[in-house]
Amino acid sequence: MTLTLNSPLDMHLHLRDGDMLRTVAPLSADTFSGAIIMPNLLPPITTKKALIAYKKRILDAIQGSGDNDLLQSNESLSPDPKEHDPKEYNDLLQSNESLSPQSLSPDPKKHFTPYMTLFFKPDYSRSFLEDIQDELTAIKLYPAGITTNSEGGLSGFDIDELRPILTVMSELDIPLCIHGETNGFVMDREAEFVPVYEKLATAFPDLTIIMEHITTTASVEALDRFDNLYATITLHHLLITLDDVAGGMLQPHLFCKPIAKRYEDREALVKVAISAHPKVMFGSDSAPHPQDAKECPGCAAGVFTAPIALQALAELFDKHDKLDNLQAFVNTNACNIYGITPQKKTITLEKKPFLVPEKYGSVVPMFAGMEIEWSVIYE
Amino acid sequence: MTLTLNSPLDMHLHLRDGDMLRTVAPLSADTFSGAIIMPNLLPPITTKKALIAYKKRILDAIQGSGDNDLLQSNESLSPDPKEHDPKEYNDLLQSNESLSPQSLSPDPKKHFTPYMTLFFKPDYSRSFLEDIQDELTAIKLYPAGITTNSEGGLSGFDIDELRPILTVMSELDIPLCIHGETNGFVMDREAEFVPVYEKLATAFPDLTIIMEHITTTASVEALDRFDNLYATITLHHLLITLDDVAGGMLQPHLFCKPIAKRYEDREALVKVAISAHPKVMFGSDSAPHPQDAKECPGCAAGVFTAPIALQALAELFDKHDKLDNLQAFVNTNACNIYGITPQKKTITLEKKPFLVPEKYGSVVPMFAGMEIEWSVIYE
Repeated sequence: MTLTLNSPLDMHLHLRDGDMLRTVAPLSADTFSGAIIMPNLLPPITTKKALIAYKKRILDAIQGSGDNDLLQSNESLSPDPKEHDPKEYNDLLQSNESLSPQSLSPDPKKHFTPYMTLFFKPDYSRSFLEDIQDELTAIKLYPAGITTNSEGGLSGFDIDELRPILTVMSELDIPLCIHGETNGFVMDREAEFVPVYEKLATAFPDLTIIMEHITTTASVEALDRFDNLYATITLHHLLITLDDVAGGMLQPHLFCKPIAKRYEDREALVKVAISAHPKVMFGSDSAPHPQDAKECPGCAAGVFTAPIALQALAELFDKHDKLDNLQAFVNTNACNIYGITPQKKTITLEKKPFLVPEKYGSVVPMFAGMEIEWSVIYE
Repeated sequence: MTLTLNSPLDMHLHLRDGDMLRTVAPLSADTFSGAIIMPNLLPPITTKKALIAYKKRILDAIQGSGDNDLLQSNESLSPDPKEHDPKEYNDLLQSNESLSPQSLSPDPKKHFTPYMTLFFKPDYSRSFLEDIQDELTAIKLYPAGITTNSEGGLSGFDIDELRPILTVMSELDIPLCIHGETNGFVMDREAEFVPVYEKLATAFPDLTIIMEHITTTASVEALDRFDNLYATITLHHLLITLDDVAGGMLQPHLFCKPIAKRYEDREALVKVAISAHPKVMFGSDSAPHPQDAKECPGCAAGVFTAPIALQALAELFDKHDKLDNLQAFVNTNACNIYGITPQKKTITLEKKPFLVPEKYGSVVPMFAGMEIEWSVIYE
């Protein structure tokens, strides 16, 4: 049994920088046509120059990724990686969208659009946002100190203070992506944040608000109460609960923010995902950390799923007899919500076992050493 | 400011076996007069022979512990460890209680009574329990598979099936210590178990039932509803919530079963502990694992607190201006509930900073590398 996905998108992705970027960006490009790139570097992406430079580093990492194929299974070996053409590369930098897959490299695994985001700051001016808009797909808002490298995030959600920036974003049609957690008890943080989502959605009805990586029934229920509220859902929150993280042995590689919740929460997420609810999109929140930053006291938050996500999603949707809805979850809904047309990339999956590698570079993926029932077939 | 504690007891302690036993038993003996010793070895303690042999290994570990002093702070160095006298040692094996501190060794740090327990099995006979009773202080019941080495535990709590053994235990006045968790969602397991406690307490009103290491408001509230329900409380559950384990970075050295709960739960525990509620006793549940079994995928459950417990309890009780109640929590209540008279041991604490070692042998303690406001003064 096979399944073809057209231009799958990852609407929430951490690619990091430097060596880690060079390890993980090609892995996302292997199976995704594009991804919303999180801006929480150190320092975070807050200027046009930093955004364009980061986008260039991402594309460089993907274009120069021949060696990284060694990290893949044998099926994905690409013996003849081609260098990109500088002119085409400049063209690529000018546009987020609609690149012809033939324009860049004969290897379709290298065709990948990084949809860039800025780290939210309340004082971005209209002229700044107008100037950067062609390079920008969304702005990501972190409450201060809530997750990796979010120390410079927002404290408080005063509507009057936010009115200038959110009015401009509404008018320019720039989506606001929010990591919606309070500083409360770890199991309550997301549900406690729902009133903030509701306040923003009410005050700024023309603003597209994405509730990122939702994990609770409370957030799922909020989706249908406001026309302008949307959500991404990760792979891991569709599959695990707190029991998988801490119910048996403690599993640092399943530790993430927001933390995995209860069975009824997972059920609510699965329900909207597999039913192709038009307001939810796949966003992996794939967040690589080196193994020694996970297996230690003070383990960093983040689950690394990018290279196994489509395979595991196929298994999940297949299990629920909903394979037909996977295209909506990994592409169509996102295209409609964001108004994007990703570059064409056809991914074929087959129902045959995929043995997840123990590591990708220094990073231990979810399901390391385990089998997933579906594999990506590289042509 | 100083505080003197008479014969402090740890009413729930894991000493393990082999090298680990030799590392940790002397540390408990440094500050405690005795402890209820958990029987969940591999295989668990289920025979008189195994129980006596384990008790001997514990006492050997303590008596032969000169080298272990190197693990302590300078204050605790004991340059002249004495070997025990074989006859006195045999006498010791004959009795759990009332050993004169002068009978064994001139070093009071080596005076320690292991109050032995059996691993609960529903088919222990009256004659077996009568025969072992002099060596036995309690029987520990684990639901099957609920924590470290509990695979052989009890499945189901059918009163009729349990009636023979629990009737005998009631008649012989052998307390039943229970790890009270269901196999439910990790945050709910203890509260879900409370009806089992209530069922047992009702059906066997003459049985002393100890709710071990309680972590929830639900268990605290059950205490006063049944005359024969008692509880131990750990140090770590008085100090931490799930936020400390997984609310920031993930902290494997604070991961334990039952998992730390909510703020309101911790508050309920602190309230009964510091108020000298007569039905609660200190039981550390100190559970050492080697560092590499904690800082890894599949981190083992257990917090190692034995060598820092009295210091941290003094700090907590002091903070609440309840130092006068610490003697009840670490001794008097236990003596009353268990009907024991521990050997005399006077521990002096002083309000001066104690820098917790990074490790004791291979084991990382709670608060490793941090300061506690109170120190034990070794004479």
